Amino acid sequence: MYAIIVYDVGEERVSRVCKYLRRFLNWVQNSAFEGELSAGQMERIKAGLGDIIETEEDSIYFYVARDKKWLKKEVLGQDKNLMDSIL
Amino acid sequence: MYAIIVYDVGEERVSRVCKYLRRFLNWVQNSAFEGELSAGQMERIKAGLGDIIETEEDSIYFYVARDKKWLKKEVLGQDKNLMDSIL
Repeated sequence: MYAIIVYDVGEERVSRVCKYLRRFLNWVQNSAFEGELSAGQMERIKAGLGDIIETEEDSIYFYVARDKKWLKKEVLGQDKNLMDSIL
Repeated sequence: MYAIIVYDVGEERVSRVCKYLRRFLNWVQNSAFEGELSAGQMERIKAGLGDIIETEEDSIYFYVARDKKWLKKEVLGQDKNLMDSIL
């Protein structure tokens, strides 16, 4: 499956969430990640993030397409993905 | 089409981008919007945002599915959408 994950978490948890997601997905932007995941990885990510976030305050959205082909992506302005791969 | 829009723009432009997108879409989170758009609305949004952002610094991602049914959405933690509709 192809997933886009956007998060809005307390400042003190941003870097942990970000580091955790980087293990599985491509960092796209500020608070968004995307990439191909297996069902097992998706479960692992949810469990892992569940341990990190405060469910009363934080919010993580998963948008999942069965196949990447169902999603078209366009970028206005900078494509941070490229910059990330240079870093 | 169903669109998810995530943005990462200079702090001084955040509120203008946010206000602009609210005219067309549901605010989901911090820097993400989603909703049903016509092709015409999508073009209008791109043009409108193009006038607001600094293309050398800012970055806006559009993930578009032809139909919402191709996208599954799950939320971990708070569903800010609900809070937004209460405000």
